[in-house]
Amino acid sequence: MDTPENNLLQDLLIRDGHVITMDPIGTRYPAADIAIRDGVITAIGPHLEARGKTEIEAHGNAVLPGLIDCHMHETLMRGLCEDLPLMRWLEEICFPKDRAERPEHVRAAATMNQLEMIRGGITTFIDIFRFPGEAAAVAEESGLRAIFSPQVIDQPAGAGETLESNLEFIEAWKDRHPGRIFTWFGPHAPYSVSAGTYLKMRDLAERYDVGIHTHLCETRDEVEQFLKLHGKTPVGYLHDLGLLSPRLLVAHAVHMSDADIHLLAEHDVAVAYNPTSNMKLASGVARVPELLAAGVRLGLGTDSNLSNNNLDMFEEMRLGALLQKLWRSDAETLPCELVLRLATSRAAECLGLGDQVGSLQVGKRADIIIVNLHAPHLWPVIPEPRSNVIEQLVYSANAADVLTTIVDGQVLMRDRQVISLDENLAEQMVHDAALDLMRLAGLEERLDKIAGRG
Amino acid sequence: MDTPENNLLQDLLIRDGHVITMDPIGTRYPAADIAIRDGVITAIGPHLEARGKTEIEAHGNAVLPGLIDCHMHETLMRGLCEDLPLMRWLEEICFPKDRAERPEHVRAAATMNQLEMIRGGITTFIDIFRFPGEAAAVAEESGLRAIFSPQVIDQPAGAGETLESNLEFIEAWKDRHPGRIFTWFGPHAPYSVSAGTYLKMRDLAERYDVGIHTHLCETRDEVEQFLKLHGKTPVGYLHDLGLLSPRLLVAHAVHMSDADIHLLAEHDVAVAYNPTSNMKLASGVARVPELLAAGVRLGLGTDSNLSNNNLDMFEEMRLGALLQKLWRSDAETLPCELVLRLATSRAAECLGLGDQVGSLQVGKRADIIIVNLHAPHLWPVIPEPRSNVIEQLVYSANAADVLTTIVDGQVLMRDRQVISLDENLAEQMVHDAALDLMRLAGLEERLDKIAGRG
Repeated sequence: MDTPENNLLQDLLIRDGHVITMDPIGTRYPAADIAIRDGVITAIGPHLEARGKTEIEAHGNAVLPGLIDCHMHETLMRGLCEDLPLMRWLEEICFPKDRAERPEHVRAAATMNQLEMIRGGITTFIDIFRFPGEAAAVAEESGLRAIFSPQVIDQPAGAGETLESNLEFIEAWKDRHPGRIFTWFGPHAPYSVSAGTYLKMRDLAERYDVGIHTHLCETRDEVEQFLKLHGKTPVGYLHDLGLLSPRLLVAHAVHMSDADIHLLAEHDVAVAYNPTSNMKLASGVARVPELLAAGVRLGLGTDSNLSNNNLDMFEEMRLGALLQKLWRSDAETLPCELVLRLATSRAAECLGLGDQVGSLQVGKRADIIIVNLHAPHLWPVIPEPRSNVIEQLVYSANAADVLTTIVDGQVLMRDRQVISLDENLAEQMVHDAALDLMRLAGLEERLDKIAGRG
Repeated sequence: MDTPENNLLQDLLIRDGHVITMDPIGTRYPAADIAIRDGVITAIGPHLEARGKTEIEAHGNAVLPGLIDCHMHETLMRGLCEDLPLMRWLEEICFPKDRAERPEHVRAAATMNQLEMIRGGITTFIDIFRFPGEAAAVAEESGLRAIFSPQVIDQPAGAGETLESNLEFIEAWKDRHPGRIFTWFGPHAPYSVSAGTYLKMRDLAERYDVGIHTHLCETRDEVEQFLKLHGKTPVGYLHDLGLLSPRLLVAHAVHMSDADIHLLAEHDVAVAYNPTSNMKLASGVARVPELLAAGVRLGLGTDSNLSNNNLDMFEEMRLGALLQKLWRSDAETLPCELVLRLATSRAAECLGLGDQVGSLQVGKRADIIIVNLHAPHLWPVIPEPRSNVIEQLVYSANAADVLTTIVDGQVLMRDRQVISLDENLAEQMVHDAALDLMRLAGLEERLDKIAGRG
């Protein structure tokens, strides 16, 4: 019965947090509680009268929306043979590995990646990789909010998913966890996926009412090849295919002309900015100020543990800001509150989830993280009204400062103890899978040769 | 008595670590122990027969030399008013703050900074800032190895230390903790310190047999002003004053001509590379490959919590590598083992401590850290002989992964619990000092004005 007494009883109550809502006007509460029922935020304010079946004391630490990773691959082989030139790395390491990859390797990878995301305060991510059913099965357990866009590759054959397997995955998973696990189309890139496949996906995405995630304009070479082959940029090419629409999320968008940016804005295409990956692979620097000025929806992404090599969205925020400041010779570019939006409210809009998550507001899903402020590397904390908490989060914090991670009102990690996945079991599984994949792909001999042992 | 039995008894024994020595040939032990007596490493190897008065089980985690920060200021006001253009930030925030700064603020700052360094695995640092006696007094307690180079500023008067106070500090502290606390000269920069002061310091540094730490060629403006005023670069200017020598460590060295680099190499001047600061302040990108190719001693620095904003040397290694890869469009630039040397063995050489610390070798001082490898963001760990531990440390780890920090054989932090300083007492002191300094410097009104509240 919905008596006043029952109304006071919530599923979860977070007490005494320094709450950064990231709502449209940037409301912050120096000390407030948050009440959650049925996975939804029911109240935010100082000294709520509610009680919670579970109560979490935030001790004045920062309470903010869970972070959102707008582009990532759930890969396994982190730190395997670094510092090679891109083509040697792809041909000698990645391609043999990709061809050898089996579902159990993706299961292990997804377990490692989702553990890392929970531990780093990521509550929503979009994954574009192989064997999506395996990764989605891990997400069933982990409790994270996730979009899976199976990475479809036409050329070279066998290197990724197919249109057919993408469709099968959508059919199998689209209704299993409505609102938490989403199924999209994931054409890899215009140079690896045919125009025909893109056109079919465009129509199918309409029919299923789902999104499309693709790589675009990551390297200068890619753009130059397209200009040579097609007489147009990759953006112009996708535009002519009728792919540009609010359904489309493109990763990287590094090498863009003014006309390209105008086209993305005009068709309300969303962009994932991956600063660490773009630096590590020496791809270039995305034109973030121009994209934002044109009104393009934009969020941050980690890209993967192969090209980053961690999934630390705090570091991604910091690096995303610093890279633009350096590139523009302008310390004012990408101020910290805007950068935090690229990992929360604006990121949610990129994934079509802006009405569900990305900010702490009554009626939204309860995707919430608590971040420790009682750590020397985050001191001093200046109280309101001149609070420097966002400054400390963006410019000083890292993934390990996240204490508690909550999705849909479910506590996935509390005080750094992951609850939804078994970290101890996972460690051996990940190591075994990595060694097995090395062996299957013949990488041991290749690595020995690179190291001069062969 | 030095009986065989006594020889087996060590002060400290670290058992079962994945030991990365960073010795000249890069020796690594997949599983080894390290024995320490009287602050010195006495043995490294698998299954040592020794016992220790204290024994630490490393559980297969990475054991490596403590990290060395080659340029930093122990400042207090982290995260106070970010994203302003440099001149507004300096004039509206930094200068009022610097003028108001009192010894007790530096005491609080040094406590916060040294706590953060211990927690992040930094075992040696060089500080250039005000009231060095306060910071050195904290180092007495913290147990860290430190060089203090009082920041001497002639113009504007009152903004820093003076030649006289620098000398007084050297006299007072030079013999207090031989081999652990060092006293250098710290002329701020050629644009803020007169030629006369530099000349006196040159001679005094010879007499006292100490080093000189200065800022050099940080911004393009600085170099252009020097060319206009003096008809030579700042490097040429210091060369003509006879300052270039193995005693000199210069911070930044971003805007350098080929001739500048040749001069630094010829006179064996050391350089601190500060990638995060150079990005955040939009200063530019140091010519690290050219400096290394010329044979210049080079190490990494964090610069300070004002321009970074943390003292995370793992992040500094990663960013230092990534920035060069992007800038050169070459993913092979600054490979991870070299980057780790810039924070260990090569950094030690920059500070004139190459025979004492920077690598784990019998006879060297026992400055050692243990870094957790049992964390999802550092999986998988590939065993020897194809170990990817250095890859994981440089491209994925962060300061929070450091479990244990040891200097001179003294355990300063064990299993993330700092032993030598009281973290709980420090927190209130730091917050109180920060608010006091804000008030004294009239920053509350300034911040309100910047935020549009004034």
